[in-house]
Amino acid sequence: MELGVMSLGDHLPNPHTGIRTSQGERLRSIVDSSVEAESLGFSMIALGEHHFNDYIISSPQLMLAAIAERTERIRLATAVTLLATSDPVRVAEDFATLDQLSGGRAEIVVGRGINPETYAAFGGLDPKQGHAIMSEKVQLLDQLWNSKEPFDWSGEFRGPLENVQLKPSPLASAPRLWMGTGTTEESVRRTAAQGLPLMLPSIFARIDTWGPLVKIYRELMEEQGKQAVVGSCSYVHVAPDSQTAREQWRPYLTGYVTWARQLLGSKSPVNYEELIEGTAMCGSPEEVVERMNTFKEIIDPDVHLAVFDVGGLPHEMLMDTMALFAAEVMPKL
Amino acid sequence: MELGVMSLGDHLPNPHTGIRTSQGERLRSIVDSSVEAESLGFSMIALGEHHFNDYIISSPQLMLAAIAERTERIRLATAVTLLATSDPVRVAEDFATLDQLSGGRAEIVVGRGINPETYAAFGGLDPKQGHAIMSEKVQLLDQLWNSKEPFDWSGEFRGPLENVQLKPSPLASAPRLWMGTGTTEESVRRTAAQGLPLMLPSIFARIDTWGPLVKIYRELMEEQGKQAVVGSCSYVHVAPDSQTAREQWRPYLTGYVTWARQLLGSKSPVNYEELIEGTAMCGSPEEVVERMNTFKEIIDPDVHLAVFDVGGLPHEMLMDTMALFAAEVMPKL
Repeated sequence: MELGVMSLGDHLPNPHTGIRTSQGERLRSIVDSSVEAESLGFSMIALGEHHFNDYIISSPQLMLAAIAERTERIRLATAVTLLATSDPVRVAEDFATLDQLSGGRAEIVVGRGINPETYAAFGGLDPKQGHAIMSEKVQLLDQLWNSKEPFDWSGEFRGPLENVQLKPSPLASAPRLWMGTGTTEESVRRTAAQGLPLMLPSIFARIDTWGPLVKIYRELMEEQGKQAVVGSCSYVHVAPDSQTAREQWRPYLTGYVTWARQLLGSKSPVNYEELIEGTAMCGSPEEVVERMNTFKEIIDPDVHLAVFDVGGLPHEMLMDTMALFAAEVMPKL
Repeated sequence: MELGVMSLGDHLPNPHTGIRTSQGERLRSIVDSSVEAESLGFSMIALGEHHFNDYIISSPQLMLAAIAERTERIRLATAVTLLATSDPVRVAEDFATLDQLSGGRAEIVVGRGINPETYAAFGGLDPKQGHAIMSEKVQLLDQLWNSKEPFDWSGEFRGPLENVQLKPSPLASAPRLWMGTGTTEESVRRTAAQGLPLMLPSIFARIDTWGPLVKIYRELMEEQGKQAVVGSCSYVHVAPDSQTAREQWRPYLTGYVTWARQLLGSKSPVNYEELIEGTAMCGSPEEVVERMNTFKEIIDPDVHLAVFDVGGLPHEMLMDTMALFAAEVMPKL
C-alpha cells in the first residue's frame, strides 16, 4: 500500500486563538508540507478544488506546479478536480503541462461535484445530468491526452472542436485518471463500467461501509480483465501517546467538521468520539497502525491518502504529526 | 527602464539539425531560463498562451507557478492571456493563487486574440465582438480581485454569478493588468479610456510606428490624471561581435518568422535584414545598446521585454545571449 497526503485547503481559524493565518500562509503551508511529504516518504500528494468558499484551493493544478518544481518523485494529483464544471480542454492542457514539467508525475481524480452553486457559476449545466456530463468529459479528456493525430469532436456539454491536437501532450502517457466516487453501489458499478481506478471519498463514514462496494468494483473489473485500482482516504492525527493525540486534535477536527457540515447545509451535531471511531484516525502510532490495518483488511487500497491539515491546525503541529506518521506508522504498513 | 524576458514558447526544430527537442525539454528550458533571468537581473518574465499549435505554452500561469517556486523577486506575467476566450473567474482564481504563492509577484497582460479557431474552440463567441467581450471580462476580473464582499454579477458573455467572493484573493492588491494591444490608434484610445497600462505587441514592425500611438496614449492618460504605464517588446540576439550575432541568428529568426507568418495565413516572404532593422535587435552589445536607446527615445517604455528563444535556438545559446545581454547591455540602459 502506497501512502499519500491529501489537503482540501480549508482555511479556518485556530480554534484556540481564534486567529486565522493569512491566505498566503495557508497556501504556502500546503506547498511546503507537500515538499516535506516527499522527504518523509509519502508517494502522492492530492489537492482538492473548491470555489468561492473557505476551502481556498481554487486552482489545485497551479499549486501542484509549484510543488513539482521542488520535488522529484512524489506523484501530483488533485482530489478531486470538479470535472463536470470544468472545461476538459483546459484541464487536459493543465495536466499535460504539469506532466511535462514534473517528468510524468501528474495524476487526476475527477469528481462530479455536489455543489449546485458551483454548477450555476461554472457553465450553468444541470447537476441532475452530472453522470452524463462526467461520462462525456472523461471521454474527451482521454481523447485529448491520447490522440496522436488532430481530431474533430462534438458533444452535448461543450462546444465542438475541429481539427485539434493537444499541445503540449502528456509526457509519455495520459496522466492516471481516477474516478472520485464510491458512495453508492451504482457509482462503483459506473466506475467499473468505465474501467477506471476508483478513489473513495474523504467523507466521515464507517470503514466497513466501503467493503461491499469495493468488492463489487473489484469483481466487475476482473470480469472485464482489467486491473482494479483502489484509493482511499482518511483524516489522521498521530501523537506520541493516545491521550495527547485525542486531546490535541479535538478542537481542530470538531471545528472543521462542524464548519464542513454547515457548508453542506447540515446541522447534525458533531460527535468527536464517533468521528474518530469512523474513518478519522487518531491516536498513538500503534493505534493508527491498527486502524490502518483495518482499512487494509476491508478495502486493501493501492494508495491511501491521509488528510492531516484540518480546522486551522498550526503548520508546526502539521509537520510533527506528518513526521511521526512517517517515522512510526508508515514502516509498519 | 526595467528589463524583462518574454517567451511565446514556439517549439520548432533546430534549423541546423532539423531536430526538435522534446516538448518537455522545451518547457523545462523556459522554466529554467526564467529562473536564470532573475539571477541575471531581469525584473519580469512574461509567457504567451496558445492552443493546439506549436506554440506549446497552453497554460502559462501553471508555468509561472513553477517559476515562482524557484525565484524571489522576478515579476510573473503572461503576455498575453487570451482573456476573450477564457473564463475570467478561472483567470482571477489562477492569478490570485499565483500572487499568493509568489508573495505578490503576479501580473497579467490580457489580449483579445486574433485566432478565430481559438474563439471557436473556447466558448464560441464571435471574434467581431472581441472588444465588447474584453471590456466585460476585464471589468469582472477587476471586481473579482478587488471586491471585499460577496457580490452578484451578470453580463453578456458569461453566465451570471450569485453571491460570490474570490478565494483566494490576491495577496495585497489586484495583480497589475496590462492591455496587450497597440496596433491602431483606436486600440490605444480604448486602453487609455479604461485607464490601463499598455503593453505593445511583439510583432515585427518599425519602432517608429509606435511613437505616435504611445504619445496619444500618454496624453489621454494624463488628461484623466492617470499614470501612463507602457511596456514594449522585441526579439533580441546579442553575440560578442556584430557579424557573429547576425550569422548565428539568421536561421533561427528566419525559420521562426516564416513559420509564424504561415500560422497567420500569410505567405509574405521573410527578409532577415529587414527584420533586424525593425523591432528585432541583433548585434554586438554596443549595437543592441544603441537599438535599445532608439526604443527609449521613441517609446520610453517602463518595461521592455526581450524575446530571446525563437526558432529552435538551443538552450545553451539562449543562456549565452541572455547572459551577454545582462552583462553588457543591461548596465548601459
